[in-house]
Parts: sequence; structure tokens; C-alpha cells
Amino acid sequence: MDDRSDLAESFASIDPEFRQRAKDLASLFDARNVAVVGASNNPRKASHHVIHTMLEEGFIGNIYPVHPSEDTVLGLTSFASLGDIDEPVDLVVISVPTPIVLPLVKEAAARGDVSNVVILTAGFGETAVAENVALEREIVEVGRAAGMRIVGPNCIGVINTRTKLCTGFAPGLTLAAGGVGFISQSGALGGAFLMSCASQPAPLGFSKFGHVGNMSDVDVLELLLYLADDEETRAISMYMEGVRDGRLLMQVALEVTRTKPVFALKVGRTELGSHAALSHTGALAGSDRIYDAALRQAGIERVASLVDLVAVSKAAAYLPSPTGRRVCVLTQAGGPGIIAMDETAQTDYLQLAALHASTQDDLMEILPPMAMICKPNGYIDMTAAALEEMHIRSLETVLKDPSVDSVVLITLPPTFLPAIDLARAIAPTLRAASKPVVTCLMHGDAMDEARSHLEAQGVPTFDTPDLAVRALTHLTRATLGTSANKEDSR
Amino acid sequence: MDDRSDLAESFASIDPEFRQRAKDLASLFDARNVAVVGASNNPRKASHHVIHTMLEEGFIGNIYPVHPSEDTVLGLTSFASLGDIDEPVDLVVISVPTPIVLPLVKEAAARGDVSNVVILTAGFGETAVAENVALEREIVEVGRAAGMRIVGPNCIGVINTRTKLCTGFAPGLTLAAGGVGFISQSGALGGAFLMSCASQPAPLGFSKFGHVGNMSDVDVLELLLYLADDEETRAISMYMEGVRDGRLLMQVALEVTRTKPVFALKVGRTELGSHAALSHTGALAGSDRIYDAALRQAGIERVASLVDLVAVSKAAAYLPSPTGRRVCVLTQAGGPGIIAMDETAQTDYLQLAALHASTQDDLMEILPPMAMICKPNGYIDMTAAALEEMHIRSLETVLKDPSVDSVVLITLPPTFLPAIDLARAIAPTLRAASKPVVTCLMHGDAMDEARSHLEAQGVPTFDTPDLAVRALTHLTRATLGTSANKEDSR
Repeated sequence: MDDRSDLAESFASIDPEFRQRAKDLASLFDARNVAVVGASNNPRKASHHVIHTMLEEGFIGNIYPVHPSEDTVLGLTSFASLGDIDEPVDLVVISVPTPIVLPLVKEAAARGDVSNVVILTAGFGETAVAENVALEREIVEVGRAAGMRIVGPNCIGVINTRTKLCTGFAPGLTLAAGGVGFISQSGALGGAFLMSCASQPAPLGFSKFGHVGNMSDVDVLELLLYLADDEETRAISMYMEGVRDGRLLMQVALEVTRTKPVFALKVGRTELGSHAALSHTGALAGSDRIYDAALRQAGIERVASLVDLVAVSKAAAYLPSPTGRRVCVLTQAGGPGIIAMDETAQTDYLQLAALHASTQDDLMEILPPMAMICKPNGYIDMTAAALEEMHIRSLETVLKDPSVDSVVLITLPPTFLPAIDLARAIAPTLRAASKPVVTCLMHGDAMDEARSHLEAQGVPTFDTPDLAVRALTHLTRATLGTSANKEDSR
Repeated sequence: MDDRSDLAESFASIDPEFRQRAKDLASLFDARNVAVVGASNNPRKASHHVIHTMLEEGFIGNIYPVHPSEDTVLGLTSFASLGDIDEPVDLVVISVPTPIVLPLVKEAAARGDVSNVVILTAGFGETAVAENVALEREIVEVGRAAGMRIVGPNCIGVINTRTKLCTGFAPGLTLAAGGVGFISQSGALGGAFLMSCASQPAPLGFSKFGHVGNMSDVDVLELLLYLADDEETRAISMYMEGVRDGRLLMQVALEVTRTKPVFALKVGRTELGSHAALSHTGALAGSDRIYDAALRQAGIERVASLVDLVAVSKAAAYLPSPTGRRVCVLTQAGGPGIIAMDETAQTDYLQLAALHASTQDDLMEILPPMAMICKPNGYIDMTAAALEEMHIRSLETVLKDPSVDSVVLITLPPTFLPAIDLARAIAPTLRAASKPVVTCLMHGDAMDEARSHLEAQGVPTFDTPDLAVRALTHLTRATLGTSANKEDSR
């Protein structure tokens, strides 16, 4: 069924130097002594927010603001130059006007203790102006000579939610820890992803975040390989525009997807989109058909939108790993149930579970006479007459059927059944489930309290039935792909 | 390009009796004297919420609770039977156990002044049990003999936001008035649509709502024809499972879409979905390919999800009518801009506007050097350096170019540009635009205040760039279809 193992052999193994560089990114994510150059007290400056976020969230290391004229920044002692910091510095974050970035990188190099430099400033290679491209190249050379890796320029850098290191900025950013690592080839999309995570009914945590901007030195594929070995990262989500080295993408992806599900929103699906991507990062997006085939062969699960990427990240963070494709759709309302069935059929991967006769008998006893049980088999419409107890017992009944691998649970608590009462009632069953259940409580703000209650306990909820089905489909395909690959490579 | 005019002629004209029945639905939507049978003080009963909502929202007519044992319901004098109400009654809403529905319909008939009966109770034809099917038929016969129309059973009935008539219930329901009429073939989806409207950054109002459940008498197509002539309804959104009479659907749709855009979420796209729909409303969903062709030929714009239906409803409610397909994508961030371009190309209807050379020159003066102007033409990446003034001037510049029919505006106000400041700054330009602009402020809760500010002034905002593009695409196709049809029929 899966020939990825052969495929991996057909690619030369990953270059050991590249592998070492990826491993060494630990020095970036685990940095403890961070200088922020350009940091001011003006909240209209990006670097202000870098320090503000780390202070707010409680970065466990040391922060050294560097500014020519400020004495203190956000209460921290500020230094006139990098050279003035007497303590060790392992990471320098630079956010200053374009022309003075190079001199500052040289200052960082001169210190001798700096391992990584994150450059937030834009105006380099992405402008496609010869002079700026040359400037970017010189920065990388200075870095290389001094043994410093350059992240960016034109990036928001990295986040480590364990240490609360955060070189970037986004409104409403919170650094809750969780199991998903996120890699972005767009600062804006990276920010949007994090803001979407923060806006879920309960904030969706993440392990690490990386946006490497122009990729003058540190490359997006190094991040991917680094996260493969990161113990705090259970699954990886990516926003991709394009990579320079398709062969390396395949090598890295084939290795990473052996152990963790990887989800990607790859844009440039169309010629117009590719053209826009070209003017954005200067990276050739390449033929979408080739990317699509490559991602599939490498076991990277492609999603169609930011909303889908966040949804599958949530599913991956919270749910037990699916062990098969057979899904039971358990709904309390017909219309939303039909939508789930349409989506299941259309995505053409999950199969409707064939419930055992005894399960059907049990459901018949539990549910009211007007309920539609297994028409077709695997689909149960409990009807709006189903209150708390019927939800719980129906869910328990289908979960214990060995022909069911996963469940889509849809409910629209009517006005006479307060959503929070229902959520409190079903939470223990959902929490205890050893099979993945994607839950959809419809709809809108009126469900917020109930959904927050569930998510705070690690029970993921989704806005609509189609989104719930897509999240489950992506998670199942990526996970089964991973396991199959594992078995192949034994 | 459009042969709908010929098509209309090829169908026999609408049966005059059907047309009259649709017209007479005014007596339902404009009902002023409403008896609610089964109404109790128990908030776990549906009918409690019917009265509660009308009282909360300020129904302009009279409400008469009917209950065998309550003296007052929610402070209103309650009557032991329908016959005990001495005042005129034009609408009866019934929410009682299934076996006593028929006797109550007979009581309503005996009064002689009742025009319409809405039956919320389920357990009739939808169960496909012969006895229940027969009971439903008898109810309709009683109604017919007495000159009463039956809405339902198994429905949530109708809402008129002008009079605050509301026979249904849904948590968080608000009855804000607006330009979109909504028809649903699922009570749950109807409720979800209304709850989604209520949960927008500013609540999205609607004109009328109708859910006719089992369609034992009043049919979904009557509602559609009724809304065609309703002055408060500017556009119509529908959730469809299936109709019994495909020919009538074509006749009605061809007439309605001459004057108003109609959007439909038609489910049963797949065999699994159709099967589930069959067990839901008992209506044969029919081949999706046939429906798809019929809807397209009739000028009904089909959407893929509830989220899309709400988004296009919002666009239709707020925006000036598009007069052409040429769109300009104006973004402040690359990644989200690429997503918009991908979606534009993929939906394959809107065309990228070819901006005049003078417009490009003006943009070059307005925007910073690193901005990407018209690469490709019609696509502008202002970059994150764009603050309030650049947003306003760029927007004004592209709007006044005669080769632009509509604009997709995408912005991710960075931490150093408070979203609310940006929203306040651009609101006047967006409000004054005579061309449709779909605005996307990314992302999440951090944008709520800014988006509410815009929407409260009639400027629609969308969660993601792809959703904004889809809403604009649907609105444009439906509107141009409508106008083309108008011209054809002159």
C-alpha cells in the first residue's frame, strides 16, 4: 500500500552537515541570554513588543535591551551597544533600520559568544534589488565566519513555549504550551496561525514556532528536521510557499513523517497564486502538481486552508491516534449530519463503520422511536429529542463497537437543553475515549462556554460538521501513513 | 451568454393557484394575534422559548398562551383552550405531544378566524411509520377544510424581524432586521444559520426566516416565491435538502432570480449524504448532478458550506451590487495575499483587474519602495510597512480606477499598529465606496473590536482571505446573473 520506504532509499540520505546544522538549532530555541537590538519604549516599534511579550509570559532567561539612547526599556537596564553587555549573550535579535543591520551583525560577531542572530528587519533579498541582495549575502558571510547562524532577515523568528522565548510579535499572542510545532514561510500567516490558536474556545498551545523569512541562512527544512527530534512536538503544521531544493524536501519529509504527522498548507496552487508568491519571497513556487505529488509521496498531509490547518492541529494536539478509517457519525440533528456525510464521502478516505447488530440493538433501546439508527449503517440521527443521557449512552455504545475506529459527534443543544449542561454531562465520556472523537457543538457564540469547558479538558471542538470531518480525515491519513511507514522500516 | 430567458419560456408559467398561495403567506409573516399552545413556564419546554423570545424582542402584536393548567405564562394571561380566547386569533403555534396535535388543530379550525397553524411537534411523516404519516395527512385535511394553512409539522416555523414575530427557538437568537431572507429545510441548520448571524462581529440582521419541516402543506418553494416580492428582502439564502417537484423549482427560481440574488447550500452532494437526507426529511435528494445543473440554469448560486452561506449573506446585505468581474487584490501581507490569489484563480470566475498605468504610478508614490505593485497586474502587496494613511490612499486609488469592479482588502495590523486605530481610519473610505470591497482583518479575537467597529457601519469583514474571495465571487456571479436576466427579459 505504501512505498515510501523504498522511496526513502531511492533518495540519497540526508547530508550529515545539514543534519548537524538542524540539530544545532537547539542553541537557537534554547537560548537563555538574549540581546534585543533596537528595543525602545515606543509601543509603535516591533522590538518593544518582543521584550514586552517575553516579560509578560515570563521568559526564563536574561533579556538585554540594546538602544543608543534609552537607559531602561520596559524596566530593564538598556545597553548602548552589544559590546557593552558584560554577561554572556547567545542570541541577538535585531530590529533596526535596514542600513545599520550589517554593522550590528559585525558587532555581534565581534563578541565571540553569539550563536544565533534573528533579523526582523526587512528590505533585503526579498526586494530583488541587487544592492539589497548583496547586503543580505554579506550578512550571511559575516555570520558564517563568526560561527553564527542567521535567521531571516525579514522574519519574526522563533518561539519556544517551554522557556517563553519569543523573538516575534503578533497581537493577542499567548505562549501556551502544547504538542504542535508550527513552521511558517510567511510572518503574517505565522502570526495568523498563532492568533487563531489563541482564539479557540480554549487557547490551543504549541511547542515551537519558527518563521525564517528570506532563509538567507537557516532554512525552513532545517526547522522541519529539528522538530522531528523535538520531544515536546507531537505533530508538525506548516505554511509553505516553496523550497529551493525539492530533493532535500523529500529526504527530510520522508524522515520526519516516519515518526510524526506533518500537515501543510502549501499555497501557490494556481498560476496567479504562484506569481504572487514569487513577488513575496522570491522563491519559485514551482508547479503545484509536482509539489502535490511530492508532498503526498513524502507523507505530508496537505490541507486547503488556514482554518483547516488550525483544526487538524487541534485534533492532533488533543486526540488519541486513530488506528483505522472506519468512522461512525453520531448526530442529534439531521441537516448537520447530512453535511458530515457529504464531507465524509467527498474526502473519500474515511469509511462509514458497519456497526454490529448488537450495537444497533443497544442504540434502539437507548434512543427514542423517531431516531434514525444506521440508515445507512454507521450513521445515527438521535434527533432533537436526545437529552444528556442519550448522548452519553449512545456515544459509549458506538465507541465500544470494535468496528468503529473514530466518531464524529454533532449536536445542537436546543434552547431547552442548556449547552453547558450537555457539555458537563458528556465531558467525562469524551475525555475517557480511547478512540478519536471530533465534536461539533453548533453554533456560534452561544456555544462558547460549553466548548471552552470541553477544550479546557482536552476535548477538541469544531465550528461545523464539515470542518470536524476534514480534521479527522487529515489526522487519520497522516497518522496511518506514519505507522505504515514505521512498520515498513522495521 | 445566458439563456435563462428562453429557459423560462420553455417552462409552463407558475400555476396561478400556487402563486396566490405564496402571496397569501403574508398572513403568516404578518400575523398579529398569536396563540401559543403548550406554552408553559418550564424553560425546558420549546414553547416557553417561543413566547420568551417574542417578549424579549418586543413582538408588536398580541400573544395568547394556551395551557390546560397554567394561569399565567411569563407574565401573560394563559387560556385553558383555544376556544377560551375571546380576542381574534390569526396564527396558532402548537408545541404539544404528538397524539394531541390533531385535536388541537380541530380546535383551531373550530374558531373560524385562524389563517395559519405552525406545528413544532415532531413524530409525523418524517418517521415513515404509516400511522404517523396518516395522522399528518389528516391534519392537512382539517386545515384545508377550514381554510387554514399548515406549517410543519416538525419545524421551527417563521420569523419576521420587522414585527418580531418568532415561532421558533434557538439559543442566542436575536431578531435584528436586515436585508437577507433565509429559508431552511432543516430546523437545526436554520438555527445554526441564525446563531452564526448573531455571532458575527456585528450581528447580521435578516428580513424573514422560514423553516417548514415536513412540508405537509406550506412548501419551501412557496416561501421562495413569497420572498421574491417581499420589499424588505434584498437577497435570499437557502439551505436545501431536496424538493418534490423539480419543474416547479425551476419555474420559481427562474422568476425569483430575475430580481434578487439567491444563494443555496444544497446538501446530498454525495450518495452517502443523499442517503442520510432520505432518512431525515424523507424527501428524495435526487442526483446531485441534476440539481447542480438545475440550480445553475435557474440562476441560483450554490455555495459549499454553512460558513460560505453566512459570508455571502453578509456580503449581499452590506455591499453595493457588483457591476463586473474585475477584482483588485490589495494586501498588506504576502502570505494572505497569495491565498486570495489562489482562491480567485481556483474559483475561476473573477478576473484580476488590469490597473491603468496612471494608477500604478500613483501607487508607486503612495507606497514604500519595498511594496510589490502589480506583480502581477491587479495584485498589490503594500507590505507590513503600510500604516493607516497608506491603506486609505491605496484603497482610494484602486477604487477610482475604472478598470476595477471590486476590491479584496487584506490586512494584518501588526502589534505596533492597533487594529482599532486602523479600522477607525479606513472606515470612512470603505463606507463611501460605490464598488464592493470585501475586507479581511486578520486574525482571531484580537481583531474583534476593529471588525465590530467596521460592521456596525455596514462594512462587512471576513475571517480569512479565501472566504472573502468566495463571498465576493458568489455575490458577483449571482448579481450579474440577475442583471443579465433582467436585460434579457426587457
